[in-house]
Amino acid sequence: MDKNKFAINPPMGWNSYDYYDTTVTEMDVRNNAIYMAEHLKKHGWEYIVVDIQWYAYGTGSKRDQYQYIPFSKMAMDEYGRLLPCPERFPCSENGKGFAPLAEEIHRLGLKFGIHIMRGIPREAAHRHLPILGSKHTANEIADPSSICSWNPDMYGIRPDVSGAQEYYNSILKLYASWGVDFIKCDDICRMDMPSAKKEIELLHNAIVNTGREIVLSLSPGPAKLSEAWQYETYANMWRITDDFWDKWELLLQMFERCEHWQYHVGEGCFPDCDMLPVGKLGKGFGKERDTNFTKEEQKTMMTLWCLFRSPMMLGAELTKLDDWTFSLITNDDVLKLLTVSRNARQVRRDEYTAIWRADDCSQKCSYLALFHLSGEHTIEVSAKELGLETFVGKQLTELWTKESIKENSDHLTITLPEHGVSLFQIKTI
Amino acid sequence: MDKNKFAINPPMGWNSYDYYDTTVTEMDVRNNAIYMAEHLKKHGWEYIVVDIQWYAYGTGSKRDQYQYIPFSKMAMDEYGRLLPCPERFPCSENGKGFAPLAEEIHRLGLKFGIHIMRGIPREAAHRHLPILGSKHTANEIADPSSICSWNPDMYGIRPDVSGAQEYYNSILKLYASWGVDFIKCDDICRMDMPSAKKEIELLHNAIVNTGREIVLSLSPGPAKLSEAWQYETYANMWRITDDFWDKWELLLQMFERCEHWQYHVGEGCFPDCDMLPVGKLGKGFGKERDTNFTKEEQKTMMTLWCLFRSPMMLGAELTKLDDWTFSLITNDDVLKLLTVSRNARQVRRDEYTAIWRADDCSQKCSYLALFHLSGEHTIEVSAKELGLETFVGKQLTELWTKESIKENSDHLTITLPEHGVSLFQIKTI
Amino acid sequence: MDKNKFAINPPMGWNSYDYYDTTVTEMDVRNNAIYMAEHLKKHGWEYIVVDIQWYAYGTGSKRDQYQYIPFSKMAMDEYGRLLPCPERFPCSENGKGFAPLAEEIHRLGLKFGIHIMRGIPREAAHRHLPILGSKHTANEIADPSSICSWNPDMYGIRPDVSGAQEYYNSILKLYASWGVDFIKCDDICRMDMPSAKKEIELLHNAIVNTGREIVLSLSPGPAKLSEAWQYETYANMWRITDDFWDKWELLLQMFERCEHWQYHVGEGCFPDCDMLPVGKLGKGFGKERDTNFTKEEQKTMMTLWCLFRSPMMLGAELTKLDDWTFSLITNDDVLKLLTVSRNARQVRRDEYTAIWRADDCSQKCSYLALFHLSGEHTIEVSAKELGLETFVGKQLTELWTKESIKENSDHLTITLPEHGVSLFQIKTI
Amino acid sequence: MDKNKFAINPPMGWNSYDYYDTTVTEMDVRNNAIYMAEHLKKHGWEYIVVDIQWYAYGTGSKRDQYQYIPFSKMAMDEYGRLLPCPERFPCSENGKGFAPLAEEIHRLGLKFGIHIMRGIPREAAHRHLPILGSKHTANEIADPSSICSWNPDMYGIRPDVSGAQEYYNSILKLYASWGVDFIKCDDICRMDMPSAKKEIELLHNAIVNTGREIVLSLSPGPAKLSEAWQYETYANMWRITDDFWDKWELLLQMFERCEHWQYHVGEGCFPDCDMLPVGKLGKGFGKERDTNFTKEEQKTMMTLWCLFRSPMMLGAELTKLDDWTFSLITNDDVLKLLTVSRNARQVRRDEYTAIWRADDCSQKCSYLALFHLSGEHTIEVSAKELGLETFVGKQLTELWTKESIKENSDHLTITLPEHGVSLFQIKTI
Repeated sequence: MDKNKFAINPPMGWNSYDYYDTTVTEMDVRNNAIYMAEHLKKHGWEYIVVDIQWYAYGTGSKRDQYQYIPFSKMAMDEYGRLLPCPERFPCSENGKGFAPLAEEIHRLGLKFGIHIMRGIPREAAHRHLPILGSKHTANEIADPSSICSWNPDMYGIRPDVSGAQEYYNSILKLYASWGVDFIKCDDICRMDMPSAKKEIELLHNAIVNTGREIVLSLSPGPAKLSEAWQYETYANMWRITDDFWDKWELLLQMFERCEHWQYHVGEGCFPDCDMLPVGKLGKGFGKERDTNFTKEEQKTMMTLWCLFRSPMMLGAELTKLDDWTFSLITNDDVLKLLTVSRNARQVRRDEYTAIWRADDCSQKCSYLALFHLSGEHTIEVSAKELGLETFVGKQLTELWTKESIKENSDHLTITLPEHGVSLFQIKTI
Repeated sequence: MDKNKFAINPPMGWNSYDYYDTTVTEMDVRNNAIYMAEHLKKHGWEYIVVDIQWYAYGTGSKRDQYQYIPFSKMAMDEYGRLLPCPERFPCSENGKGFAPLAEEIHRLGLKFGIHIMRGIPREAAHRHLPILGSKHTANEIADPSSICSWNPDMYGIRPDVSGAQEYYNSILKLYASWGVDFIKCDDICRMDMPSAKKEIELLHNAIVNTGREIVLSLSPGPAKLSEAWQYETYANMWRITDDFWDKWELLLQMFERCEHWQYHVGEGCFPDCDMLPVGKLGKGFGKERDTNFTKEEQKTMMTLWCLFRSPMMLGAELTKLDDWTFSLITNDDVLKLLTVSRNARQVRRDEYTAIWRADDCSQKCSYLALFHLSGEHTIEVSAKELGLETFVGKQLTELWTKESIKENSDHLTITLPEHGVSLFQIKTI
Repeated sequence: MDKNKFAINPPMGWNSYDYYDTTVTEMDVRNNAIYMAEHLKKHGWEYIVVDIQWYAYGTGSKRDQYQYIPFSKMAMDEYGRLLPCPERFPCSENGKGFAPLAEEIHRLGLKFGIHIMRGIPREAAHRHLPILGSKHTANEIADPSSICSWNPDMYGIRPDVSGAQEYYNSILKLYASWGVDFIKCDDICRMDMPSAKKEIELLHNAIVNTGREIVLSLSPGPAKLSEAWQYETYANMWRITDDFWDKWELLLQMFERCEHWQYHVGEGCFPDCDMLPVGKLGKGFGKERDTNFTKEEQKTMMTLWCLFRSPMMLGAELTKLDDWTFSLITNDDVLKLLTVSRNARQVRRDEYTAIWRADDCSQKCSYLALFHLSGEHTIEVSAKELGLETFVGKQLTELWTKESIKENSDHLTITLPEHGVSLFQIKTI
Repeated sequence: MDKNKFAINPPMGWNSYDYYDTTVTEMDVRNNAIYMAEHLKKHGWEYIVVDIQWYAYGTGSKRDQYQYIPFSKMAMDEYGRLLPCPERFPCSENGKGFAPLAEEIHRLGLKFGIHIMRGIPREAAHRHLPILGSKHTANEIADPSSICSWNPDMYGIRPDVSGAQEYYNSILKLYASWGVDFIKCDDICRMDMPSAKKEIELLHNAIVNTGREIVLSLSPGPAKLSEAWQYETYANMWRITDDFWDKWELLLQMFERCEHWQYHVGEGCFPDCDMLPVGKLGKGFGKERDTNFTKEEQKTMMTLWCLFRSPMMLGAELTKLDDWTFSLITNDDVLKLLTVSRNARQVRRDEYTAIWRADDCSQKCSYLALFHLSGEHTIEVSAKELGLETFVGKQLTELWTKESIKENSDHLTITLPEHGVSLFQIKTI
């Protein structure tokens, strides 16, 4: 199994976090999956991912104090492997785990993913639980000083001791047996935390060991540029940002993050700009609310993600999508870039403007995105700056409006709304 | 109870760590206590302190891998309070704790101390054990992200939640009931770790609450100068160095540490230069060995500690003391400074030399210590630099050799051996 | 000359910075001096200090871009010693320097001080100017990589090379010849800059070398706790804060700074809380304005400075003092603490309250200051917390209101206004 | 002019630094150029680069104290533009600058480069020299706090003020008029120094402004991964390491540096592993000496640099090359990789081994390099790990020994000497 061969384009799907936080239930997942199958699948959306703490009891019950209640009860088998909390996922009872839910989702023609935390449950280590397929016990592989800075559930693993690989093998084997297609492993790549390079490799090995094509996604980001080789060698996608939310400052920063990571996009291998906080969000965080992004900002986001070829995970509650948001995420001309864009690269970046270019895999056209960041709304760009001889004889089609322009000079002048974007397909005519 | 009134001079005693590491037994403690009572008590030595991991089973059994075996079995009561491991402290069985051993030591006319780690056992938190005298449970007060960087046993406490003070009260109550006279709390003051100021206050309150005169000693150091007020207000002594061992570099650094802390020595209140690694050391660390300090270095150490009024804890196995070491630690003229030295202050410090002065509480004499650090062995000092008008009419008695000199000039010239010291009592005649 | 014997109490005076920034002129200085001689001298105020850039031409002319104009013209003699800019200090012409102005000030019964920057003018180094009294030239002692982070005028000095001490000797000799009584040396002590310990010693030596009693004041702060020994050994005062201005947050922080430095107050030796930004301020910074402190905050500041025995330098334009401010800075009962307060110490400090105590040098009374910081305005304190047996039989006189109270219990309850203070003298009756 | 079109392969040449430090003379440069033209040019070597301080008088005269004598005399024109020191470069007299030397070198069929420091001479700023082609003066564009941490000659430039671009234009115009083909700008890219991104852009603009094809090389490294876009957009090569010398630790680190930068190699755009410290080195540093690298280490270095496509600058005194070193640097099979290697990538990296692969631009063969780093000398690798189906039917030719092997399995086993390498060309037969 070659990890880069089964998800060659950026994964597209839905993730429970932005709307449900830690409280998502089986029914919520099912409803979103049904919606996706009916309305979004035809546009390429296919993954349904259950995010953090599906194994925990009482999630959300102390939301004023904790996002993650310390020392709370977790569903776990006798080998220290976490299981879905039966209160929220009743179909998991009797040791079935996520198998029934995964099966439902597969029947809808979709794929199923889950979130995991790096390491082994602290409780497993304190209870000296055996590691399946090994003579070792959890306390032998757990590193009591390797803890997540924001979640209290796990201890990191001593990657070089006997039993470490076996532990990751044991959980991946279980998850593969359920039919999991996508693993989002958290607390495993972040600039300001110690390197977990070796644990990434163990996870990769464990996936290969299952024989199942499971996408490996790393969080929480921002990933370390200096560990790009590990990400590319062992994972399919890695977050280049900490949790992305609907704030302009975060979207603005993404231009710089994409600048840094533009050299690392490849087949089966994607720097990840994180979920799309569009539509209805936030219920599990306290109150359902609409995205704070303006429509222009949302188009800017969609353009950057698609051109750059970031994985695309919807944060919205799908069953509550409004028409405009639906049109945003089903613009096939724009979404197509996820498949055909190649060599996306920053051409200009200053306080006011970002300009990106990309080729098309067919080599029959190319792409140009002009972004308004601040200040003046009119952007001028020369053909030369874009690596073109001239605009004469080119047709530029804006992919959001479908409007075409023909420039008869070597300069292009575009006026954009606040935080707006124009995304052109450029063809020689 | 005024914390500064019952140990007004620097505590003097023996600590199990330098010789036994984590492996000390009841019999070892008893033998050292008997030796102290017979041979050292008359010179002021009186504390017997059992250092780290007296509660742990199997200590030392994996010394090639760990100093502190993670997730190992600990003796603990139903309230999450640690108890002596009965394998090493058989007299503690049947819930007697350290009471029988403390009683023995008290009968010898000595005082009894124990080491504790800041916080609550991780296991207590994971097991949700009740806190004695409170409606709360361990998981509610434990902070899962407050961990010691080098020892895996405990979680720090959320000092502001209900149950936190009660927990410290509960353990101090137990320790007071055993007859403990001295608590060395570890992982609670160190420059490069987050402040544990509030936990120091909780510990102090818990001691006051017992009504027993228990010395509070803070480790591991180096303490933070910026938290001196907390130490002085709530503790009796605090380590100004990380573990001190028999290396010249560490002894050399102590001159700077004492420079920093000279302003903070007071009645019942002592910056702590740490244990005296003299005589036989290291058995628990792998192999019994002699101190690496030269005799001159040991005199330098004794002089600095006594003049500065550091607490004095012997690291040696007392039953194996050689004659020279015995004479070193029973030089009453030098040890007397622990009681009478006042206002010890650095007068000169450069690469080559350190010069310190101190007053005597009687105001009838004063002290001068000249230390050779490197380079030239001859030190010149003017009366003026020492705050004296002249040396004429003064008698200078060197307290290690008992030799007296009379200087008839305003300059003093002393030749010292490598890393050596002259300690003068200065009297007007 | 013993540096601690001629300014045994905290210096009190006026400094040009808070009102004039870099633009103060001879006439401004003279006017403030005349006012002080007539109105403030009887209350203890005596120093007149000319702050930064008295040597520079065109100061303030590019205030929108620079506080300190880089590479601007400086008045300098042939030995690289800075001279007053004759445009602003015409009486300095013909090589007289500050001598005429100092003489005027002395005639008024006051003392004269100037600000200097650590090091040697960059221009002197680039021009290879000779060092007076030395065979060396400026380029040999200047360290081209030792620069001030905020002022472009000087290079620091290589303290260990020949010519370094001579350079400082040469400038101090000049300043002593002018009649300077106070040197505020800037860029020489600050937590986040490399240590300039050695240059402090050179400056001290240079002062001793003049034979003149010149106070040495170190800036900009916050000073390093770990270098307290150098400050105490070589200087008279050192800033424990960066520039202090009329913002409550800065005043609030001063409680912590005083906590840290309370151990370091001595005869001739003062941690310095910086200037008092009262009355009219800021003209040189762009616009004259009134202090932003409330009256209560100003009393809080005066109380803390006096009890703690900080040096006191008025930032106000003296000729524009209003009655209330005049009364604030001439309250002799409060100012007296600068002379008689001893052993000022923090007793309590939390989010809401600071409580300080001090002894009186006469031992006939003591002091208590209660400060409101935030939250509840009523403060309760027990006699025991203050180190007293009881309040019974004590008379407490509040030094701002002159009101006396007698407490017949062991508890004192005081209600304070926002950011207010009560300052009690406590006497046994 | 497209900066990526005129030096499409990694520049190969000689640099004066490793042998001469700051002391190189016109005659030294000439001799090395003549040698290169006669013996090395046919193997691709063509640049002759004069490194640091060609403008300074008295270089090397205080080598015991300084590498760069502060405030020393520099040759400079009336616009603050540095000129060759006529004492070392007599042909530069009468304002001819490096033109005569460049012309000689060009006549030999070679190219001529010089080193510059970022910024403007400090002396020019202090003297307020005019900027050619501008109404501004040096003091207006110099930033007095932007200094190099190790060289005292220059101030950095405020990139956004008027006159800044003009200054860089003025120096590049001069250097272009001399016939300079290569600029090595120092103090402009390094991880631990503030970003000089904007100055890189100014330099690039200044080169474009000359119309001359001048390679822009950035030092000292290690460059910042997060600024790769600037380097690629504005420069031709940038150092990914601080000064590289003949120590195994530094060579070992280069494997990691190449791992990080492998994504950034392109036409006209090269991460730079720095000079090759082979042959005779170090005369200007105090004493001529032979490289400390073993022969195996030198082959390892050559292999990595060539496969990775680093620029190649010889540090050796060329006129003293021994036969073995000559053969090392004229192995055309290996050197050819500089031109044909594409997509060089790390395949394995652990404590013991590094394995790299590269394609050939012809797509008719590929490359494999196996490096011994430590431990076991036998390396096993599977075809699969290299992205090959099998070794069967492949011919592997080792490019140092010219020996061919045919593997009949899917595994390759190679035994290497200490720090040795095998570099295979792989062809299907």
